[in-house]
Amino acid sequence: MGVKLGILGLGTVGTGTVQLLQDTTDRNPLLQEVEIYRVGVRSLDKPREVQLPEGVVTTDLESIVNDPEVDIVVEVIGGLEPARSLILQALKNGKHVVTANKAAIARFGDEIFTTANEAGVYVLLEAAVGGGIPVIQPLKQSLSVNRIHAVTGIVNGTTNYILTRMQQEGSNFEDVLVDAQRLGYAEADPTADVDGLDAGDKIAILASLAFGGRIHLEDVYAEGIRQVSKTDIAYAEKLGFVIKLLAIAKLHASDRSKLSVRVHPTLVPKAHPLASINGVYNAILVEGEPIGQVMLFGPGAGAGATASAVTSDILHLVATLKTSTANPNPLLACRHQDYCEIAPISELVTRFYTRFLTRDQSGVIGKLGTCFGNYGVSLESVVQTGFQGELAEIVVVTHDVKEGDFRQALAEIRELSAIDSIPSLLRVL
Amino acid sequence: MGVKLGILGLGTVGTGTVQLLQDTTDRNPLLQEVEIYRVGVRSLDKPREVQLPEGVVTTDLESIVNDPEVDIVVEVIGGLEPARSLILQALKNGKHVVTANKAAIARFGDEIFTTANEAGVYVLLEAAVGGGIPVIQPLKQSLSVNRIHAVTGIVNGTTNYILTRMQQEGSNFEDVLVDAQRLGYAEADPTADVDGLDAGDKIAILASLAFGGRIHLEDVYAEGIRQVSKTDIAYAEKLGFVIKLLAIAKLHASDRSKLSVRVHPTLVPKAHPLASINGVYNAILVEGEPIGQVMLFGPGAGAGATASAVTSDILHLVATLKTSTANPNPLLACRHQDYCEIAPISELVTRFYTRFLTRDQSGVIGKLGTCFGNYGVSLESVVQTGFQGELAEIVVVTHDVKEGDFRQALAEIRELSAIDSIPSLLRVL
Ligand SMILES: NC(=O)c1ccc[n+]([C@@H]2O[C@H](COP(=O)([O-])OP(=O)(O)OC[C@H]3O[C@@H](n4cnc5c(N)ncnc54)[C@H](OP(=O)(O)O)[C@@H]3O)[C@@H](O)[C@H]2O)c1
Ligand SMILES: NC(=O)c1ccc[n+]([C@@H]2O[C@H](COP(=O)([O-])OP(=O)(O)OC[C@H]3O[C@@H](n4cnc5c(N)ncnc54)[C@H](OP(=O)(O)O)[C@@H]3O)[C@@H](O)[C@H]2O)c1
Repeated sequence: MGVKLGILGLGTVGTGTVQLLQDTTDRNPLLQEVEIYRVGVRSLDKPREVQLPEGVVTTDLESIVNDPEVDIVVEVIGGLEPARSLILQALKNGKHVVTANKAAIARFGDEIFTTANEAGVYVLLEAAVGGGIPVIQPLKQSLSVNRIHAVTGIVNGTTNYILTRMQQEGSNFEDVLVDAQRLGYAEADPTADVDGLDAGDKIAILASLAFGGRIHLEDVYAEGIRQVSKTDIAYAEKLGFVIKLLAIAKLHASDRSKLSVRVHPTLVPKAHPLASINGVYNAILVEGEPIGQVMLFGPGAGAGATASAVTSDILHLVATLKTSTANPNPLLACRHQDYCEIAPISELVTRFYTRFLTRDQSGVIGKLGTCFGNYGVSLESVVQTGFQGELAEIVVVTHDVKEGDFRQALAEIRELSAIDSIPSLLRVL
Repeated sequence: MGVKLGILGLGTVGTGTVQLLQDTTDRNPLLQEVEIYRVGVRSLDKPREVQLPEGVVTTDLESIVNDPEVDIVVEVIGGLEPARSLILQALKNGKHVVTANKAAIARFGDEIFTTANEAGVYVLLEAAVGGGIPVIQPLKQSLSVNRIHAVTGIVNGTTNYILTRMQQEGSNFEDVLVDAQRLGYAEADPTADVDGLDAGDKIAILASLAFGGRIHLEDVYAEGIRQVSKTDIAYAEKLGFVIKLLAIAKLHASDRSKLSVRVHPTLVPKAHPLASINGVYNAILVEGEPIGQVMLFGPGAGAGATASAVTSDILHLVATLKTSTANPNPLLACRHQDYCEIAPISELVTRFYTRFLTRDQSGVIGKLGTCFGNYGVSLESVVQTGFQGELAEIVVVTHDVKEGDFRQALAEIRELSAIDSIPSLLRVL
């Protein structure tokens, strides 16, 4: 046997990976050279879906990352600690690392990749974004000959599942969330998914690869889907859009030395390739020069898909260990140490969809127009759409506008006596 | 300067590649180590869109593949000869080869890869299928940890463009073809595209990578789109389908040691991910265990997209040259010498859509049913749809049936006096 794995974690992803590696017929024959040498877990008593030889499973994870026999450490315990410390220790011991841990990479990527580069080993993370979809490796390798302009993704399956069901059934967010939790599509504590934080971690990672610089996670603007109402989904539909939680990293419109990196619910034109990505599927659209648009689509999570991604990283490392010289492979190593400059969300230039509830005073549309005009916001469409009790509902779609200007106009509009409330504010792709 | 390229051909793809390599800012920095050392063309007098230093361009292509200074030969002249001989000569001289030539690879792959393996060099061909879409490399590498069940692609932009326009405009094949030729989307001699031969070359290449065996091109069943009528597109639409020219390679239904590899117009359910791939775009859907379904989508042709793919291969070779040892990298080398066993089309099990023109005799549906029943063909739906002059039009969709049995039933049906003709016969996905 050639290459010895130390796998940290035997939950959903760890179990899927072990199952794949225990059954290699009709897969890439290189996998036959992989030995599952140690597996670390929290509890030895838990029933497991896979059988492993006596002595392989241990609760002493430190002993795995310190074992001189281990060539590759696969970190699939998740969470920040002890994952971070174990990864760092493995790297310092000269082991390559495969991880599915977007949270740890998005927060500690700087420290982790610096340590890896110093030790001359690789950290591969195909499973951290887009589940089984090959996206990290294409971005690092094939697509990197392009000048990337934008990466736009549906990278959180839970929120896409919820939005798809709200769309298809005309249901409320809260009702679908409860049902999604019951069915296992959303976690008991849905915060990380529903508030866009998981997607924020992922777009930070994608942005870093696409634009060749590290990203401070606190520069990433993240807004979730709690505020998306079935009313907005219905209006968006009439206007020719669907609402998706998009994670976007793109060159800043006016200053191309800066990036805009953000997560927010977005109106997507129905003919756009991302508009038809439904349910728990993920998709990542990469735009660049000279390639144009390329989209990668597939299952964003699940034991099998994620195990496929983890194992593809293992495969690359096995191939590397077979051919390795002292020179690091520049397509596998992290090739940047600098941080990207990220534009604040107020500098974003985008179109907005806004829904107002107004006291049905004559001239309210005129007043809206004046306030918007004061801040250079021009309107693409204004629809008086109906009534909610005493209040008239007005939907406005703007032309491209700087978010800061738009927010100032809104602040002024909020003060108008004719305005009851502004229940929705969404960006348009 | 590190790595010296000899580029054969300076047409659409060659020019796009030179443009990309002459302007490397904000691309993968490894590209800065590439030198365009020689470029071979047919005519020195042609005006060119790119400027190259004195002495780089030559009409002596042999001198390029024999030049000891050249590290990588990029073959983008197309056609079978002299492309084949030049590739073989380059390999024998120990040079890596990048090619976009699906026709040569599909026909001479055996000879070319055997020569490459003997010489210890690589032949990379990302641009040969799916233009700029990263598909060859993911199939060879990341996705190869899966047991692949099927690869299904829209891999010919010309025919997809024609079918999309027929669908959207309700136009005839001939009219759209003429217009596509005028607009440059179809060639003056459209045979290779329209008759499914180009897609046949490409699915042979994809099948070989996905299933780990070589493919005899003559085993690939190829049927084009000339027979697809606007009438069928309209009926398909009513039944919930769009018609696409699909290239399919999958494990044979009853004997999984065999493959089914084929190109034919296919009714695709509207909700299927391939149904919404329109115009000149290509998409490749890969299905396997444990990953499930992954789809890769993007521009199938064009100077920029194809140059992106060619250059991504160059990038991989540059990385390899920097780290290379005597051991070949198993993820870049061709890893199979054996041929796949391909099932004949008569063994295909599929659903069929068939349109009959019948003399309006009472009982004709009953007679159809009897003939089909004699060969075990069961019917999913039978629609009497209207009249064409004196003749009644009947559309039948079958359940899954063996193509050979279905053909026998049809032969018997053709003899019925009630049957005028069978204008359409299409497979259903
Ligand atoms: N699940 C997915 O579909 C998916 C998709 C993409 C990425 N990921 C990422 O993959 C990683 C793993 O996710 P998962 O769903 O497989 O998690 P999981 O099912 O909760 O499994 C976690 C595993 O790690 C072990 N573990 C956790 N903390 C430990 C500790 N302090 N010491 C020792 N063992 C510990 C657990 O041991 P016990 O079994 O003994 O409790 C368990 O085996 C996460 O980073 C996640 O974000 C998951
Ligand atoms: N075009 C696309 O979008 C696309 C997409 C995917 C793959 N491909 C593949 O890429 C390859 C090249 O296609 P292309 O569209 O770039 O072709 P092209 O525009 O016709 O260019 C062919 C080039 O090769 C040169 N050439 C041809 N035969 C030659 C010979 N016998 N000796 C010397 N030079 C010769 C020509 O020289 P002159 O310039 O002097 O005539 C020309 O520069 C083909 O295999 C094609 O299938 C093309």
